[in-house]
Amino acid sequence: MRIKDIGEAELIERIRKLVTTHDDRVVVAIGDDAAVTIPIMGHFDVLTTDMLVEGVHFKFPLITPFQLGYKSIVVNVSDVAAMGGFPHFALVSLGLRSETSMNFVEQLYLGMMEAAGEYGLSIIGGDITRATRLTLSVFILGEVEIEMLCRRATAHVGDKILVTGCLGASAAGLQLLLHTELEKAVPKRKEKLKRAHLMPLARVKEARAAAMHGIHAMEDISDGLASEVTHICQESGVGARLYLEDIPIALGVKEVAKAAGMRLEDLALYGGEDYELVFTVPAHRSRDMAGRVFRETKTAVTLVGDIVREEEGIVLVGREGTISPLGAGYDHFKMAKSEREG
Amino acid sequence: MRIKDIGEAELIERIRKLVTTHDDRVVVAIGDDAAVTIPIMGHFDVLTTDMLVEGVHFKFPLITPFQLGYKSIVVNVSDVAAMGGFPHFALVSLGLRSETSMNFVEQLYLGMMEAAGEYGLSIIGGDITRATRLTLSVFILGEVEIEMLCRRATAHVGDKILVTGCLGASAAGLQLLLHTELEKAVPKRKEKLKRAHLMPLARVKEARAAAMHGIHAMEDISDGLASEVTHICQESGVGARLYLEDIPIALGVKEVAKAAGMRLEDLALYGGEDYELVFTVPAHRSRDMAGRVFRETKTAVTLVGDIVREEEGIVLVGREGTISPLGAGYDHFKMAKSEREG
Repeated sequence: MRIKDIGEAELIERIRKLVTTHDDRVVVAIGDDAAVTIPIMGHFDVLTTDMLVEGVHFKFPLITPFQLGYKSIVVNVSDVAAMGGFPHFALVSLGLRSETSMNFVEQLYLGMMEAAGEYGLSIIGGDITRATRLTLSVFILGEVEIEMLCRRATAHVGDKILVTGCLGASAAGLQLLLHTELEKAVPKRKEKLKRAHLMPLARVKEARAAAMHGIHAMEDISDGLASEVTHICQESGVGARLYLEDIPIALGVKEVAKAAGMRLEDLALYGGEDYELVFTVPAHRSRDMAGRVFRETKTAVTLVGDIVREEEGIVLVGREGTISPLGAGYDHFKMAKSEREG
Repeated sequence: MRIKDIGEAELIERIRKLVTTHDDRVVVAIGDDAAVTIPIMGHFDVLTTDMLVEGVHFKFPLITPFQLGYKSIVVNVSDVAAMGGFPHFALVSLGLRSETSMNFVEQLYLGMMEAAGEYGLSIIGGDITRATRLTLSVFILGEVEIEMLCRRATAHVGDKILVTGCLGASAAGLQLLLHTELEKAVPKRKEKLKRAHLMPLARVKEARAAAMHGIHAMEDISDGLASEVTHICQESGVGARLYLEDIPIALGVKEVAKAAGMRLEDLALYGGEDYELVFTVPAHRSRDMAGRVFRETKTAVTLVGDIVREEEGIVLVGREGTISPLGAGYDHFKMAKSEREG
């Protein structure tokens, strides 16, 4: 059954049934001009949105509608986490082709609801319209305790740079999806790598643990570590040194890079979509911080660099001590289409 | 200069300069993973979003980028108003073609800022991505005092149905934009009618005045009066009678309908995008309410119908007392493309 046979009203009614919420703080959900919720006293509101466009951010059948729905929530949750907060309410705007099947839309929402359940948030509204390419725009309202707020612009000279988990898995997974012949290079890791790209995790627990113990600056790694460190430096008016040999690389990424004829850095530093966290901590507390976050969350935390004075630039220190400028990450408008579609 | 020559980082930096805010309640604006704001105690949060897609909701050069930016904010403000609330913060997600000029993007944001200034809201974040058709997704966070909250699902049998202002101007304006030869039917009103479509007003003052004096149910008229009354009835479990001869028609709409060979109802009841308000009030207070809202806002309020029992259906009473079912408004998926583009 296609949505043009059902019509807008019936489509909204079906979605409404799929996203039923039992959150006491929801006063008005789907079915009115706007959603209404009760704020928590003594918290800041955290607001974020991400737009995903077919052919730019994802391509069928490389990703299923369920996975896409799941991922569209996670990428926004990750932004709330990077502020030290937790997600609470989501609005979802969908641009759909008239020919889209109801089953497709249901799978999309089931994926969203799966992620919503994992991160404790409710989908309470949105908008549906016609489009020529599937377009998802997810908005999340979260909260953060005033003392837990983490920013990008607050790195200090002398801080250590830390990252959670391992990098490169999502970019390697994308390569496997785009070029299936690469799979034979990583027979045992291929499913994990593809999953890292299709259904990433958001590091809410880890971000909360880090925020609780006091960090200086934090960001999630959506556009690649190089890009995120550059953002922190630009906003904080500092420089940075990243040590290539300290970057934690996910298992199998090296093999994929080799088979694909790419540099390891292309996947681990510039690939993006790992949704790990990068944060800075005063050097004297950095090892203690890494240990605490690991003990509380079982997620590894690795020291990968130093915040230095702005004049020293933003550089990558290679394995033999060579120093080169850290390039930028993905640019939606400057890079060619084929470089990222998946 | 096109945005693909500038790149994403520079584009965001330019937008950031255009939307600078001085609101004390904004803790973090553009330039971080998410925006952070301070909620008002004792208020509910009101959340709404609308997605506008080129070729579906608007078409160049019928609308200028400035007008489009302006309208994209207003349509969301109107939804917040319909809950009895006031808008405060906006996030804007933009899907842009790489070939889009920087001037175009600036005009879009200048239009948004114009509307933001008029309605007292700040643009504090968003997302920018590449797309094949211009896509705008605006999200607004507003607030409403607990006792002022207006809903759709709370109409009572015996209520009168009231509307603010006059209807049909936006739909008539769209006809003039699509078929310029119709302009000669309304030489003196043509600019006003086109403006009603391109740069509509949101009835925040009027909604607040009505909410203050106690209404039962309220909605903004985005999809046409017929559609909105149907929503109120469905959500409230009631029926309605609308009296065609009582519907306030904007000046010039009759002439445009005649010249275009359309029925007046097609523009005034089914056309949509007038962004007036429809609300219900117990009959004994309805004339007093209309008078109060008019005195406080200088916007006319007209009684157009009655809320009746659900079994009586949702009907339109014609000029000779004929009764016919009230049809539905615009359906994004069922109706043909050419019927609404503009």
